[in-house]
Amino acid sequence: MTVTSPKGFRAGGVTAGLKPSGSPDLALVVNDGPDATAAGVFTSNRVKAAPVLWSQQVLRSGIVRAVVLNSGGANACTGSQGFQDTHRTAERVAAALTAASRQPFGAADVAVCSTGLIGERLPMGKLLPGVDAAVRGLARDRGAAAAEAIMTTDTRPKTTVQAGEGYTVGGMAKGAGMLAPALATMLCVLTTDAVADSETLDAALREACRVTFDRIDSDGCMSTNDTVLLLASGASGIEPSPEELTATVTAACHDLAQQLLSDAEGATKDISIEVTGAASETDAVEVGRSIARNNLVKCAFFGNDPNWGRILGAIGTTAAEFDPDALDVAINGVWICRGGAAGDDRGKVDLTGRKVHVRVDLHAGDQEATIWTNDLSLGYVHENSAYSS
Amino acid sequence: MTVTSPKGFRAGGVTAGLKPSGSPDLALVVNDGPDATAAGVFTSNRVKAAPVLWSQQVLRSGIVRAVVLNSGGANACTGSQGFQDTHRTAERVAAALTAASRQPFGAADVAVCSTGLIGERLPMGKLLPGVDAAVRGLARDRGAAAAEAIMTTDTRPKTTVQAGEGYTVGGMAKGAGMLAPALATMLCVLTTDAVADSETLDAALREACRVTFDRIDSDGCMSTNDTVLLLASGASGIEPSPEELTATVTAACHDLAQQLLSDAEGATKDISIEVTGAASETDAVEVGRSIARNNLVKCAFFGNDPNWGRILGAIGTTAAEFDPDALDVAINGVWICRGGAAGDDRGKVDLTGRKVHVRVDLHAGDQEATIWTNDLSLGYVHENSAYSS
Repeated sequence: MTVTSPKGFRAGGVTAGLKPSGSPDLALVVNDGPDATAAGVFTSNRVKAAPVLWSQQVLRSGIVRAVVLNSGGANACTGSQGFQDTHRTAERVAAALTAASRQPFGAADVAVCSTGLIGERLPMGKLLPGVDAAVRGLARDRGAAAAEAIMTTDTRPKTTVQAGEGYTVGGMAKGAGMLAPALATMLCVLTTDAVADSETLDAALREACRVTFDRIDSDGCMSTNDTVLLLASGASGIEPSPEELTATVTAACHDLAQQLLSDAEGATKDISIEVTGAASETDAVEVGRSIARNNLVKCAFFGNDPNWGRILGAIGTTAAEFDPDALDVAINGVWICRGGAAGDDRGKVDLTGRKVHVRVDLHAGDQEATIWTNDLSLGYVHENSAYSS
Repeated sequence: MTVTSPKGFRAGGVTAGLKPSGSPDLALVVNDGPDATAAGVFTSNRVKAAPVLWSQQVLRSGIVRAVVLNSGGANACTGSQGFQDTHRTAERVAAALTAASRQPFGAADVAVCSTGLIGERLPMGKLLPGVDAAVRGLARDRGAAAAEAIMTTDTRPKTTVQAGEGYTVGGMAKGAGMLAPALATMLCVLTTDAVADSETLDAALREACRVTFDRIDSDGCMSTNDTVLLLASGASGIEPSPEELTATVTAACHDLAQQLLSDAEGATKDISIEVTGAASETDAVEVGRSIARNNLVKCAFFGNDPNWGRILGAIGTTAAEFDPDALDVAINGVWICRGGAAGDDRGKVDLTGRKVHVRVDLHAGDQEATIWTNDLSLGYVHENSAYSS
């Protein structure tokens, strides 16, 4: 059910002591091969954490043999010292793996991910011994422990497994914020025992992210640490077509993205915004995002108010092709706005459940896209004002 | 202290019965001349309310002799019937003024503003008799009554008066939301007894809005109804230079903008974000807005948390010119971030007061700008989830 579901991977998770709570805070995923091809997608934020800068360099070779992830500190905005800390972490992982396996590992084989408070250096005196413990604890069935060790404000670990034709894609993720716009870090490690070169993995991962993680309430403004990695061991001996691999990786990302949404900080609603009748997919995405990012719309859903006027107001802020007098909006199946004005009785809209479906028909073409978001709740404000992250 | 402070204006405010509360909901401002030059700035939202579409037409002549404003209903997303309602309102104002003054008024002399719930038609059976009552109640000293009648979630009326050299600029405004990004309507009527043609008024008003209302937490995404009008009677006989008039109008707009901010729904902090060292004013504005619009930054200030990491994360989402390792950030005078990493002790930052000043030095040039915003509070979510607007 996780990163160790595909053949060729071991994982582990330990308590290094980075978190005051004493919860597990250091995870390790190791690719035992025979292959070690890999791809990565990183935050578009120009203020990048040290582990992002490091892992981007590692990925240039298209090879990743291990990933070390810590919660309890983002190692972002920590200057050159922070970068050295990341380097030392990768070196320690490589040294410990070399000692344990009697095969040579180098720091350049090790990607690093961090999540937690920005602007503080990591306690290396605790982290480095934690790396040794994590290596000692590596096992074929410890993927769940790794998923638990990367949690921050998450209330539960997120894992997935997707079966392909003779191969498997597994994965884990952490993240429980409004994600992209609110700069809450998302980390994700996907594994597969498929045979694929790094270019194929890269194309599959980018397309999968584009229609899943990138459509969670996203305006492209990611956190300082966001990282999605895909590692392939080739242990199944099966080489799927690029299209098939993309579909399986996309299914894994979709599953994890929905788990992130339903665990969003303080949220009471999972909202899907389906925009149809768009002149282009870009238009559909822009309209969906403008609705998903509008605080008044989000507050209205928290209050069980089917406020289609706020939705029209949000649509009006976009550059998408549409006629304001031709807009139709449905909430949970009731077309409460027709032709840009009041439609069916808003009293018929049932908003008592957690799932909310907004449908917008722009009547400007045949393209469509769906964006996912949450409501803006009292719990969200409480959590994000009380918890420094 | 309001729209009737300059010579040549009468105003009034009555209860037409549009609001369930029975509070005043219809305001009227009349320019008795000798001039009737005018300018207007309207929402950039492509979904425009009927009164906006109407008033934009009226302003094409550069002449406005009266403005009628109602709260209790936005008349937005109401189709062609809504536009006819606005037309009928202007006709009724013109007819009542013609009867009362024995001078001919036409509907095309009358601008209309509305604010309240989107998507419902106005109760014209109540509104039109209200217009007659408002005309009967017009007086040289009733500006305050007009300012009160345009309130919605405002807790207090907003008015201003600014003295020029021999002339005066007065004004009133309503608005109590997060303004632009949250689509809460802002209405503003400014009056002056200066002598100025409509082109001069237009240039002065646009420049004034650009550095005041447009810098309140704005991304250019205004509500369906936002309107700012400037009416000149010429009754002082004084014709200030365009520069002087612009400065006085800007002072009036600045005063009203600050009143809007300090009455924002549920806010507990008034936050000014001063961006210096920018390569261009555009860069400074973009950086300021990205911080002002970030929900995690806003939540942190609600929680009295000087979370500079979230501020750096917000800066990193912009396209402005800067080096991430050269960013300095001060909160209330304490430089807690220097060179993109931790600076002075965050414990020294005092966030107990309502005023918060964020200073960002991009070290990329000598341009600057200030953006104003509020925190994201429990009260904001409560008000905007419980109140349908």
